[in-house]
Amino acid sequence: MHDINIYKLTAMKKQILMLLITAMMTGGNFTILAQSDVIEDFKPSSANQPGREYPQVNSEGRVRAKILAPDAKYVQLDIGAVKYDLIKDEEGSWTGESAPQDEGFHYYQLNIDGASVPDPNTLYFYGAGRWGSGIEVPAGDQEFYALKNVPHGQVREQIYFSESNSALRRCFVYTPPGYDQDQEKRYPVLYLQHGGGEDETGWSNQGKANLIMDNLIAEGRAVPFIIVMDNGTWRMPERDRQAPRDTTQNEERPRTWPPQGWADGFMKTLLEDIIPMTDNNYRTLADPQHRAMAGLSMGGMQTRIITLAHPEMFSYAGIFSGGSISPADVENAPGFKENIKLVFISYGSRELENRRMGFGGDPEANTEALREAGLNTRFYVSPETAHEWQSWRRGLYEFAQLIFKE
Amino acid sequence: MHDINIYKLTAMKKQILMLLITAMMTGGNFTILAQSDVIEDFKPSSANQPGREYPQVNSEGRVRAKILAPDAKYVQLDIGAVKYDLIKDEEGSWTGESAPQDEGFHYYQLNIDGASVPDPNTLYFYGAGRWGSGIEVPAGDQEFYALKNVPHGQVREQIYFSESNSALRRCFVYTPPGYDQDQEKRYPVLYLQHGGGEDETGWSNQGKANLIMDNLIAEGRAVPFIIVMDNGTWRMPERDRQAPRDTTQNEERPRTWPPQGWADGFMKTLLEDIIPMTDNNYRTLADPQHRAMAGLSMGGMQTRIITLAHPEMFSYAGIFSGGSISPADVENAPGFKENIKLVFISYGSRELENRRMGFGGDPEANTEALREAGLNTRFYVSPETAHEWQSWRRGLYEFAQLIFKE
Repeated sequence: MHDINIYKLTAMKKQILMLLITAMMTGGNFTILAQSDVIEDFKPSSANQPGREYPQVNSEGRVRAKILAPDAKYVQLDIGAVKYDLIKDEEGSWTGESAPQDEGFHYYQLNIDGASVPDPNTLYFYGAGRWGSGIEVPAGDQEFYALKNVPHGQVREQIYFSESNSALRRCFVYTPPGYDQDQEKRYPVLYLQHGGGEDETGWSNQGKANLIMDNLIAEGRAVPFIIVMDNGTWRMPERDRQAPRDTTQNEERPRTWPPQGWADGFMKTLLEDIIPMTDNNYRTLADPQHRAMAGLSMGGMQTRIITLAHPEMFSYAGIFSGGSISPADVENAPGFKENIKLVFISYGSRELENRRMGFGGDPEANTEALREAGLNTRFYVSPETAHEWQSWRRGLYEFAQLIFKE
Repeated sequence: MHDINIYKLTAMKKQILMLLITAMMTGGNFTILAQSDVIEDFKPSSANQPGREYPQVNSEGRVRAKILAPDAKYVQLDIGAVKYDLIKDEEGSWTGESAPQDEGFHYYQLNIDGASVPDPNTLYFYGAGRWGSGIEVPAGDQEFYALKNVPHGQVREQIYFSESNSALRRCFVYTPPGYDQDQEKRYPVLYLQHGGGEDETGWSNQGKANLIMDNLIAEGRAVPFIIVMDNGTWRMPERDRQAPRDTTQNEERPRTWPPQGWADGFMKTLLEDIIPMTDNNYRTLADPQHRAMAGLSMGGMQTRIITLAHPEMFSYAGIFSGGSISPADVENAPGFKENIKLVFISYGSRELENRRMGFGGDPEANTEALREAGLNTRFYVSPETAHEWQSWRRGLYEFAQLIFKE
């Protein structure tokens, strides 16, 4: 028999002991996370603000958050729809870890005594209908979206007046490396849309679309093209005239889901305003042969609806975690088979397994049937990811290598 | 004598009563704010996230914050270096107001049981060494930086490799309306710097430099020019190689202030990297006659030091709340008097009064002495503002109308 000497316990065992003591003291209000397997190789997340040591991520993909809150009753790390209790130290700082997360980017927040707030240590990203914290879990394939010393394009904030909305709008436009040097060259255009609860900042901030393109172009794996990233969450003018909603109650989504007008309203804006604005302000190849549309989730659904309704406008359709296109869809869309040179469908492997987003039939079977019906298709599955940005970064990476090469 | 009937009290009086009861219950831990004068005409701040009802601002410039935090012991609104206690309602939401703030933009945060966190309802801005909440107090002259249906320039995120830092850097470049249309036209350039604890995002986010320029150009009051906004917080390479600091303790400023290398290090980066990169990538008029430098606070001090050290490179110097230039400075800077066509010095009236930033002598007296010594000068005082963004927006607005007109 050995006596237990607290001074000889490892750091890991101390942590477990502290958890048990805390659980006893708080009368069982805690959800205890078994931490005995936590690997102590945490490093600061690349999505942290400059100089911030926390949050950190370890080689398992666990997220460790830390925040000073000396007078709080409880603090939780809220990530992937699970709340993990943090533990308070003598100085009043709270620390704790999540279960392993998938590789790539994740939105999260802290819960301090019932208040859902951003972690003050991270950069902020728009998703789930709010600007909030994000974390990067290092990925095995992260080189494809890493910032490298290669020629870089620009991401331009473009303000323009939309006649169809009678409003000033904003989009972001990626122009490839060399765009300003050769003033004679004209470029194809990809219209690339975000998901529900996100906005026009998503693809260049958390999506890293510009770095993905810079790296692909530097390696000669993609043709240089322009990318236009606009806001697909179209709002009815009536709604905009109403007073803003009180969202202090942590309501994160619009009352109706998907938001009203998300496809038809945005289609009108895209065709009447965004495409003409782009062709007027950028050196585009302004014809259907040099125009693609793609999007993630809601943006993928918009791509499906808009390319089926107006196949005379596009040559390539990319749908990332947003459904698929069936032979029946194409039969009801005159011109689609003749004009669309590629239908690209992708999903994260984890979301494909549970078929959560597979409305309108199995996406892989649909895509195979479409191929058998004579269309050029590509079905891509992002390994070990779900309905999340790493799936969509990979979707863009694959799609970008296939378009505008004719 | 009248009985007190609580049901007949006005909302305002109920609020006062609630404050007194709260003060009694909490044993005087609260700083009571006399609220009897609060005018009930609060409206959502224009810096809120889309659809968010709070924070609000009233016609006095008071800020009203609201957040759900049902289990918190206390919540405070932390703005202008003062913490204002919020009051909890039956649903667990906390609400309260600050004293009147100056017109314009202010950084702030919430304090929830000792945790300093961003308000989840606002957009985020980089200042005080962090990304945090901001609020807009409507200003009498806000039309000059309002988003209007005029021709708009672009703000471009520019990534480039800096030889002098052996690192990839990022700046933002404003190109004026029409830049992409007339491919023959070349433009003057203003190098415009942020203050300490801020970064390259400040001038276009909270400074609204692009909207100020769009409006001035539309009215024919400024010559169209390019603006380059880079990061002036130069870090020593040694320091960058160290592990990031733990800033979970709410330490907001670098350990040394001003940061090491803030003038000399940035001067090298500006002269060896930023200016050549700009002249190589944009259609600039790449001569000293068409080059200006300006900055706020630390950026103003950098402007002072760099234009005095290298007057052969610039023709205009703008120093907003960052000191002044004396005849003695000019005597020690060969070429300055001959080359610099305008020395523009500005301050907020409230900071000028207490001379807090007036090191190196009284800035107005210095500027007058400089004028008497034969230089073209302009001294501008922003009415009723302090060391804050409304002073600097106005500084840019005035300065931009005076440069590149010869």
